[in-house]
Amino acid sequence: MQTIELDDYNIYVGEIWKTLNVFLEESSYSKYFIIVDENTKEHCLPIFMEKTTIEDPIVIEIQSGEQHKNIHTCSFIWKQMIEANADRNALLIPLGGGVIGDMGGFCAATYKRGIDFIQIPTTLLSNVDSSIGSKLGIDFADIKNSIGLFKNPKAVFIDPVFLKTLPVREIRSGFAEIIKHCLIADAGLWNQIKEIENLEKVDWLPLMVPSLEIKKRVVEADPFERNIRKSLNFGHTIGHAVESHALNSVYPLTHGEAIAIGMVCETYLSAQKDGFPINFAEEVSNFILKIYGKYAFKNEYFSTFLRLMKNDKKNKDGKINFTILKNIGEAQIDQNFEEEIVMKSLAYYKEI
Amino acid sequence: MQTIELDDYNIYVGEIWKTLNVFLEESSYSKYFIIVDENTKEHCLPIFMEKTTIEDPIVIEIQSGEQHKNIHTCSFIWKQMIEANADRNALLIPLGGGVIGDMGGFCAATYKRGIDFIQIPTTLLSNVDSSIGSKLGIDFADIKNSIGLFKNPKAVFIDPVFLKTLPVREIRSGFAEIIKHCLIADAGLWNQIKEIENLEKVDWLPLMVPSLEIKKRVVEADPFERNIRKSLNFGHTIGHAVESHALNSVYPLTHGEAIAIGMVCETYLSAQKDGFPINFAEEVSNFILKIYGKYAFKNEYFSTFLRLMKNDKKNKDGKINFTILKNIGEAQIDQNFEEEIVMKSLAYYKEI
Repeated sequence: MQTIELDDYNIYVGEIWKTLNVFLEESSYSKYFIIVDENTKEHCLPIFMEKTTIEDPIVIEIQSGEQHKNIHTCSFIWKQMIEANADRNALLIPLGGGVIGDMGGFCAATYKRGIDFIQIPTTLLSNVDSSIGSKLGIDFADIKNSIGLFKNPKAVFIDPVFLKTLPVREIRSGFAEIIKHCLIADAGLWNQIKEIENLEKVDWLPLMVPSLEIKKRVVEADPFERNIRKSLNFGHTIGHAVESHALNSVYPLTHGEAIAIGMVCETYLSAQKDGFPINFAEEVSNFILKIYGKYAFKNEYFSTFLRLMKNDKKNKDGKINFTILKNIGEAQIDQNFEEEIVMKSLAYYKEI
Repeated sequence: MQTIELDDYNIYVGEIWKTLNVFLEESSYSKYFIIVDENTKEHCLPIFMEKTTIEDPIVIEIQSGEQHKNIHTCSFIWKQMIEANADRNALLIPLGGGVIGDMGGFCAATYKRGIDFIQIPTTLLSNVDSSIGSKLGIDFADIKNSIGLFKNPKAVFIDPVFLKTLPVREIRSGFAEIIKHCLIADAGLWNQIKEIENLEKVDWLPLMVPSLEIKKRVVEADPFERNIRKSLNFGHTIGHAVESHALNSVYPLTHGEAIAIGMVCETYLSAQKDGFPINFAEEVSNFILKIYGKYAFKNEYFSTFLRLMKNDKKNKDGKINFTILKNIGEAQIDQNFEEEIVMKSLAYYKEI
C-alpha cells in the first residue's frame, strides 16, 4: 500500500484494509453510515463488510446515476440519518463513484453543521479525480456541481480490487482524467499511456499513483481554485456542457466520455493560440478518438452548449473561461475565445 | 461606530454606512444579491438603498418566518442566482433577521462552492446572536438548524436604526439572548438588565456591544462547539424543543419566547445540582415571566418535547445534553438529567 500525504489527510492506495481498520479502531464514532447505490451495494459492499471490522452499519441506498446527484437525494440521505438518530460523532462513508462521493461528502459536511466522512471511491474516475481535491456537491438547475463546498475528508482509501467490479465503459470514463493529468502536467506519462491499445489489459495501480500525485500538487498549490487549479479544467468547459446536455438525452454520456470530447475541442482551441503545435493536436485527438470513438451530436445543439458554458462556475465578467494546452504536459489557464472559435472547435470534433 | 475584531472578520456596530461603503468600494464584486422578506423589503431595504452606493442590486424576496427556513426556499434563492448569472465573484447580502441571515449565508456558502457574503442583521435577536459565530443553515425534518455549516462572513454591519422598524414582540425575542449572555457570563450586566421594566424605553446599543463581546469570547475560544461554546446553549435544549413544537401550532413562538421558557426550565435544572442557590432560580424565573408572560402548554406535549430534545445536535451517546448555571454569570456544560427531572422542569414552568 502506498500513502499520498496531503496537508491534513492521507490517501491510501493499494491494500487498504489493515490501515482502514486501524483508523476505525482509533476513532470512536458513534455510528457508521454507508452510502451505496444498487451497483455498489451488490458488488462493493460485500467486500467492504468482509474486510472491515465495522458491525451493523446503517446502509443508505440511493439510485445510481448523475441524474440523481441532486437536492432531492440529499434530502433522502439527511432524512435517513435523522431517523437513525445520527449525532455529530457519526461517520459517513460514501462507497461508490463520484456521484456518491461528491453527494455523500456534501451531506456529511452539512449534516448538523458537519460530521466526519472518509472516501472509499470504487471507480477509476473517482479514484483519480473526485477522491482528491475536497470538492463536494450536487447538480442543480441543470448545472453540474453548482451547489456544494470545499471540505476535506478524514482520509481516502483506494483499493484497485473494486475496479474489477466495473464494466469497461466505466474504466474508459476514468481513463479520461488520467489522460488529462498527463496532458496538463506530465509529458513523460503521456508518452507512456498513448501506447495503450486495450483498456481491459491495463494494470491501473502504477498509473493511478502518479496521476494522483499530479492532482495533489495542483490542488495543494491552489485549494480554492483561484489560479493554477484551473489547469484541471482542461477539457471540462466544453465537456461539462456536452455532459449536461446529454444528461437528459436518450444516450447520456459518462463524465469521461464527455471530457474526452471536451479535450478534443479544447486541443483545437489550444492550436488557435501561438505555440501549441498542430501535430500535437492531431496526436491527442487521434488517441482520444481511438479510445472513445465519436459521439454524434447535431449542429443545432451548439447554441445550447454555449448557453451551458456561460453558466460555468469558472467564468468571470461574463466571459467563458478555458484552460488550454501550451504544450504536451503544460497548461495555460484563463483563456477566452470568441464564440465563433468555440463553435469551430465543436465542428472540428465532428469533422475529424 | 464601534468595531469588534474577530480572527478574520470585523463586526461594526453603530453608524455603519461609511464603513460599509468603503468595504464595497475596495472590493470588486461582479454583482450584488440582497435577500429580503416582505418586512425588510418594506422597512429596511429603502434605508439600505439610500445609505449605500450600490446601484441596481438583484433583490431576492422570500417569505418571512421560521417555517420558510427550509431547503425549498434555498432552492428558490439558488435558482434566482443562477438565472441572474451570479458568478463566484458575486456578493450576497442577507438583509433581515436570523432566518434570512442563517439561510442566506448557507446559500452563499454553497453556491458554486462558496461566494462571499456580509451580514446586515436587522433584528435585536440577530444583532446579538446569529450575526456572530458563523453558524449557517436551515431547519430540516422538523429539526431546527439540522442542515448547515460553519463559515465566516466577510464582515457584519449592525445599525440600531433598523430596530426602530421592529414590533415590540421582536425586540422581546432578541432580549432573551442578551439575558442568556448575562446569565452565563456576566453577573454585573445581569444586575443591570434585571431592573428593566419597559422594553420600549431601552437604549439597546450599550447592551448590544457587551453582549456581542461575551459571545465573541466564547465563540473564539471554541469555534466548532466542542466544549465551552456549548455554554451558549443555556435555555436552548428545552427552548428549541418547545419552539419546534410550537412552529406548526396556531400560536408559534418567537425564538426568544421559546428560549425564555427554556431558560426558566433549565434554571430549575440548575437548582437540582449542588451549588446553584434556589433564590437565584426564583429571581431569574420571576424576571423572565415579568417580561415574557406565561405560555400555556399541555402536559401531553411533554413527551413530544422529550422526543425533540433527543434529536438535539449537542447530544452524544443518546443522552440529552444540557448547559446549566453554576452561578449567575457562570455556566456548566455537558450536564445530563433523568427524563423524570426534565419532565419536572417543564411542570415547574407551568406551576410558577
